[in-house]
Amino acid sequence: MHDNASARKSLTLLGLGAMGTALARTWIATGYSLTVWNRTPARAEALAAEGATVAATAAEAVAANRLVVACLLDDASVGDTLAEADLTGKDLVNLTTGTPGQARERAAWARERGARFLDGGIMAVPPMIGVPESGGYVFYSGSRALFDEHREALAVPTGTDYVGEDAGFAALQDVALLSAMNGMFAGISHAFALVKREDVELADFAPLLVSWLTAMAPAAHQTAVQLESGDYTQGVVSNLAMQAAGNATLLRTAEEQRVSPELLTPFMALMERRVADGHGDEDGTGVVDLLLK
Amino acid sequence: MHDNASARKSLTLLGLGAMGTALARTWIATGYSLTVWNRTPARAEALAAEGATVAATAAEAVAANRLVVACLLDDASVGDTLAEADLTGKDLVNLTTGTPGQARERAAWARERGARFLDGGIMAVPPMIGVPESGGYVFYSGSRALFDEHREALAVPTGTDYVGEDAGFAALQDVALLSAMNGMFAGISHAFALVKREDVELADFAPLLVSWLTAMAPAAHQTAVQLESGDYTQGVVSNLAMQAAGNATLLRTAEEQRVSPELLTPFMALMERRVADGHGDEDGTGVVDLLLK
Repeated sequence: MHDNASARKSLTLLGLGAMGTALARTWIATGYSLTVWNRTPARAEALAAEGATVAATAAEAVAANRLVVACLLDDASVGDTLAEADLTGKDLVNLTTGTPGQARERAAWARERGARFLDGGIMAVPPMIGVPESGGYVFYSGSRALFDEHREALAVPTGTDYVGEDAGFAALQDVALLSAMNGMFAGISHAFALVKREDVELADFAPLLVSWLTAMAPAAHQTAVQLESGDYTQGVVSNLAMQAAGNATLLRTAEEQRVSPELLTPFMALMERRVADGHGDEDGTGVVDLLLK
Repeated sequence: MHDNASARKSLTLLGLGAMGTALARTWIATGYSLTVWNRTPARAEALAAEGATVAATAAEAVAANRLVVACLLDDASVGDTLAEADLTGKDLVNLTTGTPGQARERAAWARERGARFLDGGIMAVPPMIGVPESGGYVFYSGSRALFDEHREALAVPTGTDYVGEDAGFAALQDVALLSAMNGMFAGISHAFALVKREDVELADFAPLLVSWLTAMAPAAHQTAVQLESGDYTQGVVSNLAMQAAGNATLLRTAEEQRVSPELLTPFMALMERRVADGHGDEDGTGVVDLLLK
């Protein structure tokens, strides 16, 4: 029993960028025996001083532990880094950013080499790692058995959310949330551009913007309900025809303020296409269907 | 004193669309003596039964009270509706949706006709009116004296936020928040499109999306600080070069999921322009400057 317990308290981490280093510190601080490897050895030195074992090669690092976490530059780096390693009987957790398709291919690749595979999508930036109140977490998908067995170790750096056996689901939901955030940041950029030339205190305006977006984000719940039911008129408050009519004021204001409308117009064009197609009495949910090719 | 007090408890409302009707009900329910007018008289009938006085013409409605609230289709309707009215000594509150420029012109127009003017931008949909816990409110700008004098009446339907003597500021901040919301909804649409064809429970996905956007919206505080200081490297966690590199994964995922990237690409193009211009070590704040013509 003691051997098993101590075996569970050790792992290997490949990749010591800003994120890898933040992850490593939480495992070291929690008493894990951590073996690390990085393509540029200098980045491992500080961690060695903190108690990590530095492996000379990725293959040697992989050999040291059953649980191997990869946090590398991109999917191709995962293949390159592990090319010479023996993955037989290993539990490979891939926290490298990638697409759902890359995660699925990497899962098949790992299984062919005798490893169980779990993909992870990190919903946090490095300063949020090891700070539970930051709300950061990692989406995991792939081997449920691997996740259950190593849940304690995986929960050390940040929260965990297992989203299914399909290895692509973690990346899919990770990318979906990041894409939504990009849209929100685009909107925030336009909003600041509108007020920037005026005598508006940005420090007073920002809290209004944050409160408003926070109050409006839950509209996504209704979008989900409508997409599930296929009835986009369900619970509509301000229908698409009204919203589309309001776009004229948004565009005219951008023109008055000499702000390019380029971040607003693509969404407006899709709203207008839905109205033109006879869906003016619906919510804006049908825009989702226009995006599907 | 009694006469003044009772005079303060009465007002005129022009326009009984969904929003005007919702506003009217809150004043009637609070004991205000309300005179209403609507271009289509039928819409006033239900309110008459609830105790409102229905005026035959807009001019007659305006004559009935010092405080006149307009909630009409658009700015042109305000001019048309009030063309025959005597505005001398009136306090005109314009809740009609419009641009900052329209509000400023309308303020000058009202002053020329002897009225004080306050413009309002309603940050609520009709079901939020009269529901304080909805968080809805109205931006007001223009005559501070008017706002202070009628604050009690104006606070009946929903919260109030006075943002300055410049009559255009309410519309400016209203449109800025709506524009930001459009960006967020564009991002949400893309996110749903990515997951829609997969076996992902949308009812489980929506709360993740809402939490993530709620957690990320406060980044706008830092954007404001950076715009005020002009130093876009201040407090950077994930710099623009890293963010721009991550865009490749977002685009490739869209391609894998057969989702059009049209709602993401304009923002990405601006991020990449900033990186190409040598601002890769900064936050994404500089995108705001690229929007200013």
